[in-house]
Amino acid sequence: MDLADIMTQMPYCRHLGIEVQEAADGHAEGTLTMDDHHSSIPGGGVAHGAVVHGLADTIAGAAVISLHHRPTPTIDIRFDHLAPARGDLDAVADVRKDGSAVAVADVKVKHDGTLVATARGTFKTAGDTDGSAWGGRDDIEDHLDLNLDA
Amino acid sequence: MDLADIMTQMPYCRHLGIEVQEAADGHAEGTLTMDDHHSSIPGGGVAHGAVVHGLADTIAGAAVISLHHRPTPTIDIRFDHLAPARGDLDAVADVRKDGSAVAVADVKVKHDGTLVATARGTFKTAGDTDGSAWGGRDDIEDHLDLNLDA
Amino acid sequence: MDLADIMTQMPYCRHLGIEVQEAADGHAEGTLTMDDHHSSIPGGGVAHGAVVHGLADTIAGAAVISLHHRPTPTIDIRFDHLAPARGDLDAVADVRKDGSAVAVADVKVKHDGTLVATARGTFKTAGDTDGSAWGGRDDIEDHLDLNLDA
Amino acid sequence: MDLADIMTQMPYCRHLGIEVQEAADGHAEGTLTMDDHHSSIPGGGVAHGAVVHGLADTIAGAAVISLHHRPTPTIDIRFDHLAPARGDLDAVADVRKDGSAVAVADVKVKHDGTLVATARGTFKTAGDTDGSAWGGRDDIEDHLDLNLDA
Repeated sequence: MDLADIMTQMPYCRHLGIEVQEAADGHAEGTLTMDDHHSSIPGGGVAHGAVVHGLADTIAGAAVISLHHRPTPTIDIRFDHLAPARGDLDAVADVRKDGSAVAVADVKVKHDGTLVATARGTFKTAGDTDGSAWGGRDDIEDHLDLNLDA
Repeated sequence: MDLADIMTQMPYCRHLGIEVQEAADGHAEGTLTMDDHHSSIPGGGVAHGAVVHGLADTIAGAAVISLHHRPTPTIDIRFDHLAPARGDLDAVADVRKDGSAVAVADVKVKHDGTLVATARGTFKTAGDTDGSAWGGRDDIEDHLDLNLDA
Repeated sequence: MDLADIMTQMPYCRHLGIEVQEAADGHAEGTLTMDDHHSSIPGGGVAHGAVVHGLADTIAGAAVISLHHRPTPTIDIRFDHLAPARGDLDAVADVRKDGSAVAVADVKVKHDGTLVATARGTFKTAGDTDGSAWGGRDDIEDHLDLNLDA
Repeated sequence: MDLADIMTQMPYCRHLGIEVQEAADGHAEGTLTMDDHHSSIPGGGVAHGAVVHGLADTIAGAAVISLHHRPTPTIDIRFDHLAPARGDLDAVADVRKDGSAVAVADVKVKHDGTLVATARGTFKTAGDTDGSAWGGRDDIEDHLDLNLDA
């Protein structure tokens, strides 16, 4: 089972209807099959933004993982929505820059040839991880974290 | 049925387990109940980033809608992941700036008091819409769109 | 005097050494001549990130202005730094999506053929403006603004 | 000479009129004195967005450097403009999350008590550096870099 197959088996991918079709050498491709429960409006036919996020984040992450063969948690990601997501989606991602601490990847999401959204994410490629970009015993104590709520 | 109830009934919110609890005067709050199918790893216990995106985007959008009482599509949104999402999540959003064309809103997502992620989004508040920030007959012809694939 | 010339005469462009060379039909190009005072380190030879921002924001804005022929203030912009800026810079920007309320533009900054940074910005294209994306009498009262300091 | 003094002496800070007043324990503060050449319009009185970027990026970076005592290049940064910059500016930055590979910092820029802009940046805290987030001999070969121009 190759990387694309492994990622397709992730519980959230199966839940969302994502199939990772290719993930190698910093490039990844995948699809999402639209379903009624993806809509943001009852009977809508336009997917909620987070459905697009789910496909984009997954395929961008797959491109990064294909170079590092380890979990590469998303540090930050920006999505730009360019058209309504009216049906099945396909996504293509490429690593733009790959480093010993972080990598940057871009992804484009289309429906039927129309560009629906683009995203650019920064992913962690180094250090221990416990499921986020910040996990692991080598992280400095988060003594400043509470500031955000001040 | 108030705005929070209406949003909770959106198909994708129900699918993802989101409950919008408050949406008024540019402020919104909501929760997401974690489920096994939210995990990015089989048997994982850490939610996929897009689960966090789904809650954050929804609650930030609810804060904007509470001021405009019309669809306010997300134009762009940036997520910063700060800790793994290990269980039920709650989100609080506030409109930071509200204008005749766009609004900016911030949202914080926590699990059990730990800040899991923050996001800042720009939302469209004017013009016709057909489900995205760009829809409607008043938009200029997208003659430049194909450049992105060049 | 065409748009490119007008923009080159902006006080901050002259201060920073920016020349806008082309600005028409949603596309713009320009250059920045590196100077010792652009460095972030004494005797450095690597430009401060904000020098790159200055060129990128200006050329991206020029691309948007070329379609609207009015001020189009930056609402938000994300910069990704990909390599040190070790000398004269050139930038190429394209509007990706143009609408009645906002436009999205991308810009690439290079030094000697090496990609130094990319940026994507969202710009306001509608409504009154008093120098920012939020100005003008048609904006809703910013009664929520103080929250950010809470 | 402490860190704030050292940063104030950076060529670009002196060129832009930035004074770093405090930089310790993940917190930094500074000011920018407005000058005619900061304007985006002849005789304008509203600073170019990149002037705001310069102050914000510098003070956010100072907050990160105060924890690591080494160069911490900006990987990516998002600016949100909230009001025109009509005069002298002051900025306050805090590290939100600090890790062994990257740190996240927020900064607020004000003029006379009005919030002019906010920014959030991700900064590199590990590995060799040659002036950018990607420098150093420990980086993987950038064999994918050319894709961005494809």
